[in-house]
Amino acid sequence: MSKRILEIKKDVRIIAAASVVGHEEHRGPIGKYFDVYDGDDDSFGQRTWESAESEMQRVALSIAKRKCSIDDAELDMLLAGDLLNQCTGAGYGLLDYDIPYIGLYGACSTVAEGILLGALLCSSVINRCGVVSSSHNCSAERQYRFPLEYGGQRAPTAQWTVTGAGAYIISSCEGDMLMDTVSIADVLPGCAMDCGINDVNNMGAAMAPAAADTLLRYFASGGITSPDLILTGDLGAHGAEIFKRLLGEGGYDIAECYNDCGLMIYDIPIQDKHSGGSGCGCSAAVLASFVLRRMLSGAYRDVLFIGTGAMMSPMSLQQGKNIPAIAHLVHLKREN
Amino acid sequence: MSKRILEIKKDVRIIAAASVVGHEEHRGPIGKYFDVYDGDDDSFGQRTWESAESEMQRVALSIAKRKCSIDDAELDMLLAGDLLNQCTGAGYGLLDYDIPYIGLYGACSTVAEGILLGALLCSSVINRCGVVSSSHNCSAERQYRFPLEYGGQRAPTAQWTVTGAGAYIISSCEGDMLMDTVSIADVLPGCAMDCGINDVNNMGAAMAPAAADTLLRYFASGGITSPDLILTGDLGAHGAEIFKRLLGEGGYDIAECYNDCGLMIYDIPIQDKHSGGSGCGCSAAVLASFVLRRMLSGAYRDVLFIGTGAMMSPMSLQQGKNIPAIAHLVHLKREN
Repeated sequence: MSKRILEIKKDVRIIAAASVVGHEEHRGPIGKYFDVYDGDDDSFGQRTWESAESEMQRVALSIAKRKCSIDDAELDMLLAGDLLNQCTGAGYGLLDYDIPYIGLYGACSTVAEGILLGALLCSSVINRCGVVSSSHNCSAERQYRFPLEYGGQRAPTAQWTVTGAGAYIISSCEGDMLMDTVSIADVLPGCAMDCGINDVNNMGAAMAPAAADTLLRYFASGGITSPDLILTGDLGAHGAEIFKRLLGEGGYDIAECYNDCGLMIYDIPIQDKHSGGSGCGCSAAVLASFVLRRMLSGAYRDVLFIGTGAMMSPMSLQQGKNIPAIAHLVHLKREN
Repeated sequence: MSKRILEIKKDVRIIAAASVVGHEEHRGPIGKYFDVYDGDDDSFGQRTWESAESEMQRVALSIAKRKCSIDDAELDMLLAGDLLNQCTGAGYGLLDYDIPYIGLYGACSTVAEGILLGALLCSSVINRCGVVSSSHNCSAERQYRFPLEYGGQRAPTAQWTVTGAGAYIISSCEGDMLMDTVSIADVLPGCAMDCGINDVNNMGAAMAPAAADTLLRYFASGGITSPDLILTGDLGAHGAEIFKRLLGEGGYDIAECYNDCGLMIYDIPIQDKHSGGSGCGCSAAVLASFVLRRMLSGAYRDVLFIGTGAMMSPMSLQQGKNIPAIAHLVHLKREN
């Protein structure tokens, strides 16, 4: 049977995670939880915004490895990707590491896709892997919209691409299980779907049905129905409302336990972020910092993390296509 | 230990494969082995080249499914990607299928990356998956180089992006093992590397060292050293020469058993294809047609397929970066 929950049958854990963000993200309500930030101009010492994004990935993985004292030779694979054309954030950013490289593309769901695949692989055929993803506001703006210098007006439903990267070390090695960690209990890969939205300034509306489809399928297939937190990647304010309504129509009132990384990372009215944060780096950095920290402190025991992605390109929209969306679910568990 | 050969411990097979190509590919020396071709204008009945590429992926998967009488509900996952920005060839092309979707990006190595991951997953946590990849000469030319109308002159080392798609159904289900199939014995994921090449008209030179690194590592790690065929994805004429020389320097004379999909797909002098074919669709279509057919006929027993990818973007080259390359190895075996 396809479209089923895939149980992680071995003890597989996130043994370390790290986050790197820009100055706007550091100014936000969970700013103090990120490991590294650029308090100046978000260039991370690089000549181009694209190189700055690669540098964030490089630094995030370096910190995650250091946190768990794992070196290159102890990692079987890197699973990584990002929003830049040809996924060059990861392709260039992780060149320094002498680790087999598996490139992913799931738009803003990339980190969830990576954790999902990493958990499946670590439960069976490999011991440890790294998962890395990122986005940078300045590289994304010029690729998807306009160069910053253009100073375009933003729509109320528009989201703000997060400058951030997250890196995770996933392991099933017995020796690693002594560390203070979070487990991956089960995962549910999402199906790509087109719900008729073609407004690039309203990607939350395009992604919300995919997120609802995945979560309702999870509930219907015997997944846990009372997690401490249901966390979507980057639906933003408008998408989150649609998502909650769709869950309600499916018979689930999730208002009490729901949040979205795009709503958590900025103080939206004060920082003028319209519908909230978005981008691969949004969920990658929020999960790697605040959420995992809260799990380790015992505040959350079961978290359903649903990475959301809008898989259009600027050209596909110019050609009149809709925005296909996807949502992958990862059930994280804190054992004690 | 990382960077090791990953043995496929269960009986995992490619139970069906299908290929869809354009008219130039059908004119070539292995043209009769492809399942479907557009003998007219390579538009596959679509309004844009990008939609034509998506259509090739859709059709290729449809034929592969039909060949083995598998429907959507019997496939646990699709692993797919391509060269277009935001991998929209796969993102849009596979929307019709109600199957969980995992997006990949490995440039022209994508089909090898997909078969590698598919084999690992089918050996452990899932039963069956589909792998799909493609490229289209006309969508690639305008994205990476110039619109066709510009009529630019090509360098002698330049390769010709193949218009083609390949789809594969991978299975570990016992019932499927009665079919006439090819097994996946082991795989070796590649490490991304930068060898200092920044000439987009000589991608064979950028990728050859990555292919040699993967194959030499495979030999050194106890992989089979006398396959019937060593098959690289798209090194082209110049890259293939460099690859053979690097293998020779490593102590292996592979001249007798080596070929490259980019050299097989066109009659290069007659079709004026300079250094040969390239693109995700090159190895995806050649392996799915001629090579698997030859394995089933008993001509080849052991094939080492090394998918090769150049992971730059037009912007990364404009910014003065080199071309990072990668090569993933899949050991295919015909049991009887």
